[in-house]
Amino acid sequence: MAKKYVYFFGAGKAEGNSGMRNLLGGKGCDLAEMTNLKIPVPAGFTITTEVCAAYYENKKKFPPGLKEQVIRGLSQVEKVMGAKFGDPRNPLLLSVRSGARVSMPGMMDTILNLGLNDRTIQGLINNSGDERFAYDSYRRFIQMYSDVVLGVDRDKMEERINERKEQKGVKLDLELTAEDWKELVAEFKEIVRQVTGKNFPENPEKQLWGAIGAVFESWDTPRAITYRKLNKIPDDWGTAVNVQTMVFGNMGGESATGVAFTRDPATGEKVFFGEFLPNAQGEDVVAGIRTPQPINLARRMDPSLPSMEETLPKVYKELEKIYQRLEKHFKEMQDIEFTVQQGKLWMLQTRSGKRTAFAALRIAVEMVEERLIDKKTALLRMDPDSLNQLLAPIFDPQAKSETVQSGRLLAKGLNAGPGAACGQAVFSPERAMELARQGQKSVLIRIETSPEDIHGMNAAEGILTSRGGMTSHAALVARGMGKPCVVGCTALNIHYASAVMEVNGRTLKEGDFISIDGTTGEVIEGKLPTSSSEIIQVLIEKKIQPKESLIYQQFAKLMSWADQAARLGVRTNADTPRDATTARLFGATGIGLCRTEHMFFETERIAAVREMILSDTAEERRRALAKILPMQKNDFVGIFRAMDGYPVIIRTLDPPLHEFLPHADQEIEELANQMGVPFKKLKERSESLKEANPMLGHRGCRVGISHPEITEMQARAIFEAACAVAREGIKVIPEVMIPLVGHVNELRAQREIVVRVAKEVISQTGIKIKYMVGTMIELPRAAITADQIATAADFFSYGTNDLTQTVFGLSRDDAGKFLPFYRETGILTFDPFVSIDQLGVGQVMRIGVEKGRQTNPNLEIGICGEHGGDPSSIEFCHRIGIDYVSCSPYRVPIARLAAAQAALTYPRKVKNAFRKKYE
Amino acid sequence: MAKKYVYFFGAGKAEGNSGMRNLLGGKGCDLAEMTNLKIPVPAGFTITTEVCAAYYENKKKFPPGLKEQVIRGLSQVEKVMGAKFGDPRNPLLLSVRSGARVSMPGMMDTILNLGLNDRTIQGLINNSGDERFAYDSYRRFIQMYSDVVLGVDRDKMEERINERKEQKGVKLDLELTAEDWKELVAEFKEIVRQVTGKNFPENPEKQLWGAIGAVFESWDTPRAITYRKLNKIPDDWGTAVNVQTMVFGNMGGESATGVAFTRDPATGEKVFFGEFLPNAQGEDVVAGIRTPQPINLARRMDPSLPSMEETLPKVYKELEKIYQRLEKHFKEMQDIEFTVQQGKLWMLQTRSGKRTAFAALRIAVEMVEERLIDKKTALLRMDPDSLNQLLAPIFDPQAKSETVQSGRLLAKGLNAGPGAACGQAVFSPERAMELARQGQKSVLIRIETSPEDIHGMNAAEGILTSRGGMTSHAALVARGMGKPCVVGCTALNIHYASAVMEVNGRTLKEGDFISIDGTTGEVIEGKLPTSSSEIIQVLIEKKIQPKESLIYQQFAKLMSWADQAARLGVRTNADTPRDATTARLFGATGIGLCRTEHMFFETERIAAVREMILSDTAEERRRALAKILPMQKNDFVGIFRAMDGYPVIIRTLDPPLHEFLPHADQEIEELANQMGVPFKKLKERSESLKEANPMLGHRGCRVGISHPEITEMQARAIFEAACAVAREGIKVIPEVMIPLVGHVNELRAQREIVVRVAKEVISQTGIKIKYMVGTMIELPRAAITADQIATAADFFSYGTNDLTQTVFGLSRDDAGKFLPFYRETGILTFDPFVSIDQLGVGQVMRIGVEKGRQTNPNLEIGICGEHGGDPSSIEFCHRIGIDYVSCSPYRVPIARLAAAQAALTYPRKVKNAFRKKYE
Repeated sequence: MAKKYVYFFGAGKAEGNSGMRNLLGGKGCDLAEMTNLKIPVPAGFTITTEVCAAYYENKKKFPPGLKEQVIRGLSQVEKVMGAKFGDPRNPLLLSVRSGARVSMPGMMDTILNLGLNDRTIQGLINNSGDERFAYDSYRRFIQMYSDVVLGVDRDKMEERINERKEQKGVKLDLELTAEDWKELVAEFKEIVRQVTGKNFPENPEKQLWGAIGAVFESWDTPRAITYRKLNKIPDDWGTAVNVQTMVFGNMGGESATGVAFTRDPATGEKVFFGEFLPNAQGEDVVAGIRTPQPINLARRMDPSLPSMEETLPKVYKELEKIYQRLEKHFKEMQDIEFTVQQGKLWMLQTRSGKRTAFAALRIAVEMVEERLIDKKTALLRMDPDSLNQLLAPIFDPQAKSETVQSGRLLAKGLNAGPGAACGQAVFSPERAMELARQGQKSVLIRIETSPEDIHGMNAAEGILTSRGGMTSHAALVARGMGKPCVVGCTALNIHYASAVMEVNGRTLKEGDFISIDGTTGEVIEGKLPTSSSEIIQVLIEKKIQPKESLIYQQFAKLMSWADQAARLGVRTNADTPRDATTARLFGATGIGLCRTEHMFFETERIAAVREMILSDTAEERRRALAKILPMQKNDFVGIFRAMDGYPVIIRTLDPPLHEFLPHADQEIEELANQMGVPFKKLKERSESLKEANPMLGHRGCRVGISHPEITEMQARAIFEAACAVAREGIKVIPEVMIPLVGHVNELRAQREIVVRVAKEVISQTGIKIKYMVGTMIELPRAAITADQIATAADFFSYGTNDLTQTVFGLSRDDAGKFLPFYRETGILTFDPFVSIDQLGVGQVMRIGVEKGRQTNPNLEIGICGEHGGDPSSIEFCHRIGIDYVSCSPYRVPIARLAAAQAALTYPRKVKNAFRKKYE
Repeated sequence: MAKKYVYFFGAGKAEGNSGMRNLLGGKGCDLAEMTNLKIPVPAGFTITTEVCAAYYENKKKFPPGLKEQVIRGLSQVEKVMGAKFGDPRNPLLLSVRSGARVSMPGMMDTILNLGLNDRTIQGLINNSGDERFAYDSYRRFIQMYSDVVLGVDRDKMEERINERKEQKGVKLDLELTAEDWKELVAEFKEIVRQVTGKNFPENPEKQLWGAIGAVFESWDTPRAITYRKLNKIPDDWGTAVNVQTMVFGNMGGESATGVAFTRDPATGEKVFFGEFLPNAQGEDVVAGIRTPQPINLARRMDPSLPSMEETLPKVYKELEKIYQRLEKHFKEMQDIEFTVQQGKLWMLQTRSGKRTAFAALRIAVEMVEERLIDKKTALLRMDPDSLNQLLAPIFDPQAKSETVQSGRLLAKGLNAGPGAACGQAVFSPERAMELARQGQKSVLIRIETSPEDIHGMNAAEGILTSRGGMTSHAALVARGMGKPCVVGCTALNIHYASAVMEVNGRTLKEGDFISIDGTTGEVIEGKLPTSSSEIIQVLIEKKIQPKESLIYQQFAKLMSWADQAARLGVRTNADTPRDATTARLFGATGIGLCRTEHMFFETERIAAVREMILSDTAEERRRALAKILPMQKNDFVGIFRAMDGYPVIIRTLDPPLHEFLPHADQEIEELANQMGVPFKKLKERSESLKEANPMLGHRGCRVGISHPEITEMQARAIFEAACAVAREGIKVIPEVMIPLVGHVNELRAQREIVVRVAKEVISQTGIKIKYMVGTMIELPRAAITADQIATAADFFSYGTNDLTQTVFGLSRDDAGKFLPFYRETGILTFDPFVSIDQLGVGQVMRIGVEKGRQTNPNLEIGICGEHGGDPSSIEFCHRIGIDYVSCSPYRVPIARLAAAQAALTYPRKVKNAFRKKYE
C-alpha cells in the first residue's frame, strides 16, 4: 500500500492536527486543528510535504498512489459540501494553496475558483443568482491559472481589461458588466491558445493536477530559493498543498468577509478587534476602494460605519464564540480570517497574531494572570529584541506622519539605535557640547565617529552618520548610551569646513532642525515632538510613579520571571558611573567591561596622555602618568559606588597609542604649540606610531608590556579607588582584565604588575580587598591555548568583536565593502558582527571554555563583545557553559529575557560560578 | 643508604659513561667515556645534576650523604694520582667546573688550582722547580676564588697588578717575578679580609666545598636564566660539577698545551689538524701573545714554526693514536684539548667539533663512504639551514678582511638573505633596471620595499633596507630570488629625493659602489670581488662540470639520500619560469604557490589592471581584463613547460585592489594624465579603496567574489595555457588555489567559476586536462570549519604567514614595534613568522588537517607560507600528516634535508597523497 499522502479535513473531523506541522505545513495543520475543534471550515485536504520531496527526487513526477488518494479526498469533500467537482448544476469550486512548515509570505503560488469551465459556470450563476459575480470569478480563475500554471504573461490579459474600460469610458473594474466579463473570458482563452498553442483546460481534474504541480514547482523558483537562503529554511523541507472548497463573501447582502484579532494587536488590551466588508471578497479589502467597517461596537471609532455586531448579529455571536474557543485552544492571541457566504460563517484561517512589543508584553503577562499560559510560555513568546521598542523615545505619531507626508523625509539610513531624536544639526562634537551647555538639543551629524567624539555624542540627542554599518563606532556607542542613531545614510554629503550638508538636492546648515528615527532609519527635516518611553520615565527619569504605569509593572513582572528562569548572569558594559547606574536600574548584576581608554580622552587628561606618549624615557612617562592617576582613580570611585556589591571588570588600556595623537598636520601643529614641543618631533612620533594594520598592531597588553608603567598606574588607580570606597562600607569587587592576550607569558607579565601593586596598596591602606585578575579572550591563539592561559587567569571574558575579526580575518571597519554583497548573495546568511558565527567563532569559543576549565575548574567565563546583547548569541553562550553575558545598559533587559529563554530551551545543570559567588 | 651522587673516573676506569649525559652533564660523561677508553685523563669525579636539583629544592643545602661520597671520591683520586689534597710536600690540586646536559658556554663558573695555600705552595714549588710558576698559579687561584666564591670584585686585584707593573716600569704580566706574585698573593688576601671581614680560606676542604656550592649557585644567575630561556633549556635540568686533578702545560720544556680537530673544520678534509704551545697554559693561547705552532707537518703553513710532531715526537705519536681512537669511538669529528705535563700527555676534553657547512657536508658524506656512520646518521648530523652557506655567493675573503680593516665597514643590519653582493648604490627600482640594461651591477637601497619594487629587486645584485625584519617584504622576496639581502639597517638615513644616504657620518650618493654581506649583515663601502658558490656554478650556471666539483658531488649525494628518507614532498614557491627552472634544478617536485599578482605589476599590464580597477561596470572591467588575458596566459605557458609532469598550484588574485593604484597626489596626477582620467575620479577611487586594516580587508577570494570576472579571466588564462602546453606533449597538472577562504560558500562560489571556465576551455580546445581546485587555509575559521570546506576542495595549502597573523592577531608589518622586545624579555622564545608556533598556530593547523580529512580522505594538504622552508616547521608539518611543503627555490635543498630528518626522527606510515599521485 502506498504511503498516506493526503489528509482530509471537513465537517468537524480532520485526519491531521496541529502537531503535524512538518508533514502538513502551517496552513494545513491549522485548518485540520480548527476542523477538529468543530469550527466551520470549508472542507478540503492537504497533500503532504513528503510529496514535494518525492516530486523533486523523482524527476518531478508524483509518487505512485497519490492520484488515487487525491480522488478519494475529493469525493469526501464533495460528500461533506454537498457539491460535485465539475457538476454543471452544483459545482464544487476549489482553492489550491501552498503551505510550508514556516510562512514564506508571497513567495509561492495560489489558485482560486478552480473547477470553473464553460459548463460549471452555469451552476455558479444559478447558486449565486449573480451572473456578473460568476463571470468575474471565472475570469479571475483563468487569469490566475494562465499565469501560474500555463506561464502566460499576466499583462496581456490586463491590457484587454483596460482596453475594454477605455471603450466603455469607465474607470473601475466594478463598472464592467457580466457581459463584459463573459466576453473577456473568451478573449483570455484565445490568448492562451495563441501563446501556448493549446486550449485552456476545460476538464476540472486536469485543472486540479496542473494547479497542484504548479504549487510544488513554485517551491523551486529563484525568489523562493533566495528567500529560504536568507531565512535559513532548508531546501528539503518542501511545501504542502492545500486543496479546499471555495466560499464566497460576495454572494449578496448576507455575505461578507473579514479579519479580526482576539486582542488589540497595538496595545494588547483584551478586547475583540476586527474589520469586515459586507458582500465582498478578501481582494476587495486589499484593493482599498471600500472602507472596512468595525466588527463590533467596542472598537468602533467612526459612528457612521455600521458594525457587524449590528448588521449580522447572529453571525457575530457565532464568531465571538469561535474566537474565544480559538484563543483558549491555541492559548495565544489569534489573527483570524472568515467569510460569510449567504448567512453561513466559514473560518478560513487562524494563526498567531502579529503585534507591537507593547501588545506582546501585555498579552503575555495578562495571559499568565488569566492562567491561560504559564510563565515559561510567556517568556518564550516575547521576542527579546522587541523590548528595544519599549525603551526607545518616540515621536508623536500624528506629527511624524504629517511631516513625512508634507515631503520632509530627507533620506533613510540604517536603524542603528532605536528611538526618536530631534535637535539642531551640528557637525562637530564641540558644537554639540556648546549647545548642551546652553540647554539646547542637537543631532550630531558626522561622516563617521571616532573615540574623540564621545563627549559630543553624549551631549547630542541623537547621532547621524553617512558612513558605517550596524556595528560601526557610532552605532556601538549610541546603543551603549541608549541614543537614537542612524548610520550609513549614504545620501548625505557632509562638509565639515562649512558646517553644511547636502541631501537629495536640499541643503541643511548648522542650527537647522532635524529629526531622526533610529527605529526606522528615517531622517526628517524640521522639528518633531518627542518623549521618553513610559518605562524610562518610571525607571530612569523617575517622572512617573511605578504604580501609575501598567506597562512598567508588566515589564517588571516579566523581567522578574526571566531572572528566575535564567542561568546566565547579565552584566553591563559601562565606562561611567552614570551608565553603571542606568544598567543597575535595568537589572545588570555587575560590570562585564569597563573600558579605561574613554577616560583618557577627557579634555583635562588628554594633555597628560599625550605628554606620556611623547616621553622618551619610562621616568618621564611615569611623571605624566602620575597626573592621570588621581583622575582615573576618581572614575573608578564613582563606578565602584554605583555597583555596590557587584563585580566590576576593568580592562587596562587597549587601543594603540597613536589613537591619542592627532594625524593631520594642522592638528599636529596646534598641539605642538599647545605643548611647547617642536612640530617635527610630534610629527615624527605620530609617523613612527602609524601602523599598517592597527587592529593587529601594538595595542592591548602589548602596550602594557612595552610600557609597564601604564599598567602600574592603572592598577594603582583601581586599587586605591577600591580601598577608598571599601572604607565607606561599600562592598567592592574589582576584576582587572588584561586585553589582547595571545600567549600565557603576556598575561603572566601583566598579572605580576597588577598583583604587586594590589599588594602595595592593600598594605598601605590596611584595607583588604578581594580581587581577580583575568583576561579577554579575543584572539584565536588565546582560545586554542586556553589551558595554558587559564593557569594565570581567574577569569576569561570573550571579546567576540575582535575574536570575530581575527577568526574570520575580517576587519569590521573594512567589511562594509563586501559584507553587504555577501549577505545579498547568500554567501553569508548572517552578519557575524551581530550574531556569533557559531560554526566558526563559536567553535573557537567552545574550545576555549573546555580547555580553560581543564586547568582551572573555577574559571569564571563571560562575554563582553557586542554579541553579549544579541539573543541568538546569548543562547549559544548558555549552551557552551559561559557564566554571564555583558552588554550595553539599554540591552540589559533584552539579555535577561534571552538568558531566560536559553535556559528554558536548553535546561541543564551547569555550575554558575558567577551566581555562586555574588548572589 | 644515600643515593649515588658522586661518579669517579681515573686510571682507565670510570663509574660513568657517555650514556649518562642527563645525570653527569656533557663534560662529566665525556671524561668518563674517555677514561673508559683507557685514554689518559687526569683523575677526578663528577657530582650529579640531581645534587643541583636537591640543592635548590632543599633551600640550598646539600643532600645528606654527599659529603661522605665526595671524601671517598677525593681519596680515590689521591690514590690514582699519587698526590694528597692539602699535602705540603706533594699536593693534589683540583679544578672545579660546571657541566650541564647541553653546553652553556661562558654562562657558569670555573675554579682552577684549588688546594693551594701558604703550605701546599711549597710542594708545587718543589715539584715544578719553578717558584714563579707556582706563585703565579697561586695568585690566579685566589683571584678566581675570591671573585666566584667570595664575591670580591675582580677589578680590585687587577688594579694591584697594574700598580705593580707601573712601579716596576714593565708592561706584561710575564715580566713580573716570583717575588712580585708572592707579595701580590699577600695583598690579595688582605683585600679579601677587608671586603669580607674574614680571612681567605686556607683549608683545602673548605675551599672545595665553597667552590662546589658556587658552581651550583651559578646555575641560577640572571644571565644563566636568560640564556636558558632563550635556548629553551628547562630550569630543572640543573648542572653537574666536575672535580678533576689539575695538570700543567707550563712546567718546563717537556710541557705543552694544545687543541686539535680530527679533520679540517674549515674544509672537512680528512687530515689531523691542530695547534699547540710549548710550556704554556690554555689561557696563554687565549691571551694571544704567543703564536701557536702547528701540531704536525701536514698542516704547517709557516715553515719557521716547529711542529709538535718534530719537537715532542713520542707524545705526538700517542696523540695521533688517541685521536683516531676517539673519532672511531664517537664516530664523529672531534675537537680535543690536551696538556703535556713534564712529558706526560693528558687529555682534558673531547667533543664534536664545530665546522663550516662545507666541512660538515664533506665529513658526513666521507664518513658514510668510510662506513663509519650510516646514511641516517649523516643526514641527521647536517644542519639544514647551513646548506644556505653552500649556495650563497661569496666575497673574496682576503679582499673583504682588508677592506673592513681599512675602516670601510659602514654599518651592520640583519642578515636576511645570505651571500655577497656588490654594485652601484641605487635608491629606486627604476634606476636598478636602467643599470641592469646597461649591463651594470647595482645594490638597491630602500627604506623598505613593496611589491612595486620587485623588478628593481630582480635587476639588482642585492637589497639593503633601513627598516623591516627577517620576514619583511624585502627579506622574503630576496630569499625567494636567492639574492643577498641586509634589512633593518637602522644606521642608514636614506633620502630618495636627492638619491643619497647618510650612514655614521658618511654620505653615499647614487652610483657610489657598495658591498653587502647577507651572511653576516655587513654593509661595506666600495667594490669587493664576488663569485657564485661552486654548487651554483655547477647546478644553475653550468660553468663547472659536475665531475669536476667534489663539493657538488657530495651535495648531490646527500640530497639523494635525503629524498630516499623523506616522506614529505618538497615543492617551490615560484612566480616565473626562471624561478620554476631554478627550483627544479634544486630538486623541487612541483610548484606549491604561484602568485599571480606579481604578474599584474609588469609594466605593460599595470595600465590594463588600473583601467580594470577604475571601471564602473563589470562590462568595462571585462574589456580591461581581456587585455591582460593573453599576457597572463603566456606567464602560465612558461611555468607549465618548466614544470613538465609536476603539479603547479596557481593562486588567484590575492592583494586588495588599492595595491595597484598610486596613493601620493603627485603619482595620482601623473597616472591621471597618462590614462586620460580626471584627477578627481582617480583620487576618489584611490580614497574609497583605502582600508583601515588591509590585511583583514577586501582581498583574497573576496575580490574574486565581488569581481567574478577577474577569477574568470585568470581561470581562462590557466586553462588555455594548460591546453596549449599539453598540445606540445608536455604533461600539465594545474591546481587552482582560491585564497583567503573563510567560509565554504566562498570556495563554492569561486570553484563554480573555475570549473565552468575549465569545461569551456577543454571543450573548445578538445584537449583533456586533469586539474584540481583547492584553497589556501590561512584564516582560523577555514581550519576550524575544514570539514565543511574540504567538501568543496581537492586540496588545502596552509598559508602560514597569514594564519600566524590572524591566530596571533599580529600584523607582520607592525610587529617590529614590540616583537623584538618580546623576544628579549622571553615573553616569546621564538619568532612565529620564522618557525611555526606549534602550540597555537600549529594546533589550528592540526585541527584543519583532521577535520579536512574527515570529510575528504583524499585531500592533498601542503604548506606554502614562509615556514615551508624552516626546518623545525617542516618537522612539525611531517608530524601532523601534511603531504608536502613548498618554499622559495633557494630553500628547496634545505627543505629536502629537513623533510628527511623529520621522517628519520618520526618514522610512521602515513599515506602521502602527493607522492602517490605524481611519482
